[in-house]
Amino acid sequence: MRVEVLPSAGTPVLPYLEDKLVIVIDVLRATSTMVTALANGCQALIPVLTPEDALEKRMEIPGALLGGERRAMRIEGFDLGNSPFDYAPEKVGGKRVIMTTTNGTRAIRAAAEAKAVWMASFLNLESIVEAIYRLKQKTLLEGIVIFCAGTEDRFDLPDTLCAGMLIDALGSDTRLNDLGEAALMLYQLSKHNLLEIIEQSDHGRSLLELGFEKDVIYCSTANILPIVPALVNGEVVWQMEGR
Amino acid sequence: MRVEVLPSAGTPVLPYLEDKLVIVIDVLRATSTMVTALANGCQALIPVLTPEDALEKRMEIPGALLGGERRAMRIEGFDLGNSPFDYAPEKVGGKRVIMTTTNGTRAIRAAAEAKAVWMASFLNLESIVEAIYRLKQKTLLEGIVIFCAGTEDRFDLPDTLCAGMLIDALGSDTRLNDLGEAALMLYQLSKHNLLEIIEQSDHGRSLLELGFEKDVIYCSTANILPIVPALVNGEVVWQMEGR
Repeated sequence: MRVEVLPSAGTPVLPYLEDKLVIVIDVLRATSTMVTALANGCQALIPVLTPEDALEKRMEIPGALLGGERRAMRIEGFDLGNSPFDYAPEKVGGKRVIMTTTNGTRAIRAAAEAKAVWMASFLNLESIVEAIYRLKQKTLLEGIVIFCAGTEDRFDLPDTLCAGMLIDALGSDTRLNDLGEAALMLYQLSKHNLLEIIEQSDHGRSLLELGFEKDVIYCSTANILPIVPALVNGEVVWQMEGR
Repeated sequence: MRVEVLPSAGTPVLPYLEDKLVIVIDVLRATSTMVTALANGCQALIPVLTPEDALEKRMEIPGALLGGERRAMRIEGFDLGNSPFDYAPEKVGGKRVIMTTTNGTRAIRAAAEAKAVWMASFLNLESIVEAIYRLKQKTLLEGIVIFCAGTEDRFDLPDTLCAGMLIDALGSDTRLNDLGEAALMLYQLSKHNLLEIIEQSDHGRSLLELGFEKDVIYCSTANILPIVPALVNGEVVWQMEGR
């Protein structure tokens, strides 16, 4: 199976996405936060591009919360930031959250043309791998495109390592593009000190400086949440079996 | 010293390039070919963006040759392609070549605002490293930006490995961005089988399919040409000491 890793939301979206499974990764922190929110009973996350879009969208959805960040900080007037710890059960349980982040939500919307779009992070990686195997049994999967949502359209090491862990788990029956090969090599080289490397990455360091050390540690933890968030009708929801 | 690796010519060029040394890498094949051309007595290479620009430029420079590629093949009506073997002494000796390639020449022009712009490849890597040390002794070098010219704005493994070799040679006194860290790790992991990895890369495979195996082998050879090509007044020339 062909597995391509694309470096950022700024990458030109290819037309053949339509026949493929797209997996969006934004370890620090959008997809980690979405996975956590759904695990905590959030009904759905609705990705929008700008704070203005979020405010407009809320007019349509009474009771929805507003979440997201700009420069890693909560947007003024919003209910929640982009920290997974903001999305506790007592806050998001039974609620829908309209969410805008610098990179993550852009990447999800850029991928919306694909056959299926799932959100991955270290937290739910094992569940994503299992879901891929189930999908392959049910349908002819043409290929997987992994979108590393990245940091301001640059190469992002935490996202790339997470992509590498996913590729590693898929085994040797994959044909990779250059960034996929690099992701696999980088993961295999780093797998015993992932947290240290993520803390020293550009994005990791800037979150540490802002006081988000707890977030970085949490988002670097693998396989603790059995959730496969999927984009369905423009909303990120907990993917149920057989969907 | 801060060393940043940027993934492609499509990267937004940052204003602070003005105070930095930019090193452009396009292993397969633009910068490898430029290094070779200068070693073979070519007077200067003039990078332009399009074949039309090249034809127009030749009106100003009688006797200049036209070189370059689209989809890896020589452009119709041009004297030379993008293979280093096209740039033999009997063809380019004493001549100026107006050159347009899909990625390499774009990257060079994108970097034109920098304090200095040099062209690197495996062929001349050691000379680039030595020139950096000499430059650091002469002037306060604020930092280095390595532009991996890449393949169609994607991550390119051969360019990234070459960037990693350069970073490795610069030693531990560098602060790297994420792609710089990744380049260093990938190089250290691959240094004993560089050719194999380059042949299996996206760009390597497509050149092999087109019959350019000799080019791929040649361009993967390190430290055989003692040349530091520099962009001076819009032309790529052999950088002389003290310039």
